[in-house]
Amino acid sequence: MNNMKPIVSIIMGSTSDLPVMEKAAQFFDEMEIPFEMNALSAHRTPDAVEAFAKGAKERGIRVIIAGAGMAAALPGVIAASTTLPVIGVPVKGSVLDGVDAVYSMLQMPPGIPVATVAINGALNAGILAVQMLALSDDALAKKFAAYKNGLRQKIEKANAELKEVKFAYKCN
Amino acid sequence: MNNMKPIVSIIMGSTSDLPVMEKAAQFFDEMEIPFEMNALSAHRTPDAVEAFAKGAKERGIRVIIAGAGMAAALPGVIAASTTLPVIGVPVKGSVLDGVDAVYSMLQMPPGIPVATVAINGALNAGILAVQMLALSDDALAKKFAAYKNGLRQKIEKANAELKEVKFAYKCN
Amino acid sequence: MNNMKPIVSIIMGSTSDLPVMEKAAQFFDEMEIPFEMNALSAHRTPDAVEAFAKGAKERGIRVIIAGAGMAAALPGVIAASTTLPVIGVPVKGSVLDGVDAVYSMLQMPPGIPVATVAINGALNAGILAVQMLALSDDALAKKFAAYKNGLRQKIEKANAELKEVKFAYKCN
Amino acid sequence: MNNMKPIVSIIMGSTSDLPVMEKAAQFFDEMEIPFEMNALSAHRTPDAVEAFAKGAKERGIRVIIAGAGMAAALPGVIAASTTLPVIGVPVKGSVLDGVDAVYSMLQMPPGIPVATVAINGALNAGILAVQMLALSDDALAKKFAAYKNGLRQKIEKANAELKEVKFAYKCN
Amino acid sequence: MNNMKPIVSIIMGSTSDLPVMEKAAQFFDEMEIPFEMNALSAHRTPDAVEAFAKGAKERGIRVIIAGAGMAAALPGVIAASTTLPVIGVPVKGSVLDGVDAVYSMLQMPPGIPVATVAINGALNAGILAVQMLALSDDALAKKFAAYKNGLRQKIEKANAELKEVKFAYKCN
Amino acid sequence: MNNMKPIVSIIMGSTSDLPVMEKAAQFFDEMEIPFEMNALSAHRTPDAVEAFAKGAKERGIRVIIAGAGMAAALPGVIAASTTLPVIGVPVKGSVLDGVDAVYSMLQMPPGIPVATVAINGALNAGILAVQMLALSDDALAKKFAAYKNGLRQKIEKANAELKEVKFAYKCN
Amino acid sequence: MNNMKPIVSIIMGSTSDLPVMEKAAQFFDEMEIPFEMNALSAHRTPDAVEAFAKGAKERGIRVIIAGAGMAAALPGVIAASTTLPVIGVPVKGSVLDGVDAVYSMLQMPPGIPVATVAINGALNAGILAVQMLALSDDALAKKFAAYKNGLRQKIEKANAELKEVKFAYKCN
Amino acid sequence: MNNMKPIVSIIMGSTSDLPVMEKAAQFFDEMEIPFEMNALSAHRTPDAVEAFAKGAKERGIRVIIAGAGMAAALPGVIAASTTLPVIGVPVKGSVLDGVDAVYSMLQMPPGIPVATVAINGALNAGILAVQMLALSDDALAKKFAAYKNGLRQKIEKANAELKEVKFAYKCN
Repeated sequence: MNNMKPIVSIIMGSTSDLPVMEKAAQFFDEMEIPFEMNALSAHRTPDAVEAFAKGAKERGIRVIIAGAGMAAALPGVIAASTTLPVIGVPVKGSVLDGVDAVYSMLQMPPGIPVATVAINGALNAGILAVQMLALSDDALAKKFAAYKNGLRQKIEKANAELKEVKFAYKCN
Repeated sequence: MNNMKPIVSIIMGSTSDLPVMEKAAQFFDEMEIPFEMNALSAHRTPDAVEAFAKGAKERGIRVIIAGAGMAAALPGVIAASTTLPVIGVPVKGSVLDGVDAVYSMLQMPPGIPVATVAINGALNAGILAVQMLALSDDALAKKFAAYKNGLRQKIEKANAELKEVKFAYKCN
Repeated sequence: MNNMKPIVSIIMGSTSDLPVMEKAAQFFDEMEIPFEMNALSAHRTPDAVEAFAKGAKERGIRVIIAGAGMAAALPGVIAASTTLPVIGVPVKGSVLDGVDAVYSMLQMPPGIPVATVAINGALNAGILAVQMLALSDDALAKKFAAYKNGLRQKIEKANAELKEVKFAYKCN
Repeated sequence: MNNMKPIVSIIMGSTSDLPVMEKAAQFFDEMEIPFEMNALSAHRTPDAVEAFAKGAKERGIRVIIAGAGMAAALPGVIAASTTLPVIGVPVKGSVLDGVDAVYSMLQMPPGIPVATVAINGALNAGILAVQMLALSDDALAKKFAAYKNGLRQKIEKANAELKEVKFAYKCN
Repeated sequence: MNNMKPIVSIIMGSTSDLPVMEKAAQFFDEMEIPFEMNALSAHRTPDAVEAFAKGAKERGIRVIIAGAGMAAALPGVIAASTTLPVIGVPVKGSVLDGVDAVYSMLQMPPGIPVATVAINGALNAGILAVQMLALSDDALAKKFAAYKNGLRQKIEKANAELKEVKFAYKCN
Repeated sequence: MNNMKPIVSIIMGSTSDLPVMEKAAQFFDEMEIPFEMNALSAHRTPDAVEAFAKGAKERGIRVIIAGAGMAAALPGVIAASTTLPVIGVPVKGSVLDGVDAVYSMLQMPPGIPVATVAINGALNAGILAVQMLALSDDALAKKFAAYKNGLRQKIEKANAELKEVKFAYKCN
Repeated sequence: MNNMKPIVSIIMGSTSDLPVMEKAAQFFDEMEIPFEMNALSAHRTPDAVEAFAKGAKERGIRVIIAGAGMAAALPGVIAASTTLPVIGVPVKGSVLDGVDAVYSMLQMPPGIPVATVAINGALNAGILAVQMLALSDDALAKKFAAYKNGLRQKIEKANAELKEVKFAYKCN
Repeated sequence: MNNMKPIVSIIMGSTSDLPVMEKAAQFFDEMEIPFEMNALSAHRTPDAVEAFAKGAKERGIRVIIAGAGMAAALPGVIAASTTLPVIGVPVKGSVLDGVDAVYSMLQMPPGIPVATVAINGALNAGILAVQMLALSDDALAKKFAAYKNGLRQKIEKANAELKEVKFAYKCN
């Protein structure tokens, strides 16, 4: 489906954030949502970021996910130049375990929100994007409900296995 | 417009969170979005929270905003029982300045995101909800674009006034 | 003794918490307390958690230990739906070293306490449960007093060995 | 009922902690639990603390609540010399908002737990004590279940009032 | 001298930062450095910020001071679009005491530095700017050396007065 | 006794630290230890600090107490230029509650210790100095033992009064 | 060009900081700026630091970069004894990830700034120094503009490659 | 000299702290100060700690160094029962990097100081003890002055070597 025009855009501040951010991409694949993925830096390629943010809606993008580490201005700067919802993924990209990135995204001033998820939480960013898209896409809503149901079953299965683990443990 | 069926639900963990959370309500009024507002506690009225979360979508709610302080489980617990997007507002409700609430919302496990905004950032939660709704509502999208434009003009005006302030200052 | 009906229940948010949480299980074995162990997630299996919490007392459970990482809502959510004492173990399960889990458990609102122990402190959670049970079980109280005495002797023995270590060190 | 022999002991590091710690006392009054209250300092009256801790069980005390601020050694030091369960209340007693007290209580070494509650959370400490005592006191268990039910009703009532508040707000 | 073309530009994210940022302005007055002062927001007026940053050097600006609170992207975003040195002032503008602003400025990625000073440290930002300008302006260098010498004398005088204070104290 | 040659020197980074630091002075008065008190700044009067540190021992000073806030280099810089023991008092002198000062004093590199006490803990700094001096002054040792005994009695008296307070409380 | 008289001085608190600090040196090589590099400790060689700071300007040094870990007094102490701009690099040199060094540098008192960069951000310190020098050196200004342009191109190239990576990923 | 009666006592909360604490022991060896070393736990062997603290002075101990991790009550509890100066070494013994131990030692209440050094800073604890002892021991004072002088020379030598390192680097 990725020959289709992308409706979600994943931006990362540096290609070194790829191992974190690709979890969102994998989820979009699973949900069959056409997406694009780019590395743009609020500090090193500001013009490209601005051009991206200003043109995204017109190009058909509906939700933007931006991941960055350290002084992670990227999602906020994108949010400044678009009316689309922007989801921020603080990336553990420095010696400070991502706490610097959390504060740089979460504490946006009144008027320009960034929907921040957990440190390295790109999967949840993808899920949040799907939840937004599903507001006007019933088929997607059903697919997502099934996915969420699967999470529950996975834990239930793990719990069943845990009991056996426990049994093994008790024999020692 | 609030005689219309609400499409956004604002939940707060305690009525003491009202002075923070009403900023979202005011924004929905401004955007003419029908909304509802309730105080429900993940820890003190868990059944009501669960009933709310499970029934919200069917009742026509499309986005949920949940604000809470301290060990702020509320948005996560709601997100657990609905497929709707949930926005979390960490409320500065304890001696810890809301940092406890941030961690309790932001660090959701893979599968169940909460779109977290700034501490006490209820206005931004409202804006984020509008951005989501505007994905399938062009009239709202335009109204929001005008609002965002107004923010810019407000700063520009403040800047113009700043120059006069500076002039006054320089005379001293 | 674990064919006997369990009186303590160990819950963990994910089976990946098992290496931490099994220290409580081992202690219950040592104290010959019948226990059960399950993986239930406040966010991924909320109905199972609620059913567990509401039914625990009737099934004969007297103390609940709940371990979880990140936005660790599990012990609080269980505490919300039972009158039994709930002990929380913050698990170092994220990039934040368990501090997120501490705040998510410790800072419970007035009315619904979680007895929080150290990060990864599952052994202490087990000990605390035994201290509670021993309030009405003299045999257990004696067994625990002996255990505690053994801790003291272990340190005294280690101290005696330390003196020899020191001697070795001084010869270098 | 406080002519009866106390079964719970509330200890505070300094009488300046009284405004925080009396919330536990008020709860014991409400639950009709005989209790005692003392100011003892791990650092300024260590012998009195030790004598207290060693004699508490024999005197009929079943649960100890210890509140302290700053380098809050008090609950840990008491726990060291008794087999009774010890609940710690970190008191916001310094410029550090009680975070110093949290770390001084929560991070107890393996073997000697302190059941830590929220900063200034003396009411929850009292509730936790009641939950422990109710394990072998059915009348108390019922009384506590009623109290917990009351919490729920209080929130429900507040929510009902919130709707009226909202209406007022909407008229402006 | 402020009829002269400004060579330093003070930018603040909001006019509410004026009481903090004017300390830099006052220092430039004292050093007779022509300056300008504007309120521009990285998030609310991104185009104005970009235009400012790109044009600053050509307009004769040599050093930029940018103060902002919360997710303080302003100095970094300006630094992204100019080769001039940018000094960042984290402003205590939220419930987090300015720590959020520190992380948002200090932790800039390799390639785009922001010279960060203390929280609310606008005077030091001004001094730093003067130190940079003085590298190629001997008259300014002398003026600044005199200012710095004055700081020393102020402390020495305060110390002399302290001795009298102490004397008074000792009589009590 | 302060006509006698001072043997302890209290240094503070700024006269604004006097309300904190005078608690050490009051204690020296109580213990009848001759002392001196000066305001010297590691950053604003570095030469005076160095001269002080290098000459202190020869002038008969035996212990130095240095209090400072923010980037509190003062005690470390003094310790660098003397072989006398240096006690550091982190002063809550900024928006960061003294945590900045703690890190600036506590984390001294191997070779040059600063004996750090609590934030604003000037009384404890005075006590520590007396404990050092008492190592070779039996009269002072006795006086200090009496002081410490008095602390115990003060708590015991407060505890006795607490019981009456409690009685009053119970009548309500 | 390093036979030329150095105009920038890189100081580090310990030779163990070399792997961090050499990134500034490499940048000066790239920009063909003559520099010097020394290990001097504010705490272990205070006289050498003072002599360095007092003589630096006369020797032709124009900008000083000082990197240190833990209670990182070095840049502040140098700034105290020179009118030259001083750039501080907090080095992750302890168990505290460099946060201690950040506070020890950033929170300088009014009058004596340190231009602080990111933890381990020596490259950015070098860039900042070049930005200062370029204020009066047009050739350097051009060279730096080219360098900054190169950063942009590097990200753009990485982005182009990212698209291919993504393609590969999609085939799996 | 360790056949002589010890005058310094090194206590650690657990033998696992030995690799940290032995740095103090090695320094006492170097300074030829007779010392003893024991593992005693404030929480697991409280009676032994109390007996140690109460008897230390009479046995000829003059300074006590206590190292511990987590809720590190040990130095404070010892300080409570002796008039001797107590130096605390926060040991990085948990997932919290020793910050918990810092707060548990540093924030002692008025009246009972602990002279706290850096996390894992046992060498500095040893140096501080020597500085105290040297107040009444001129031979030790001279020996320590020589040691401190050696630190300076070590840095100067490292600096000289750094220049050669730099040269090698420049050839690449």
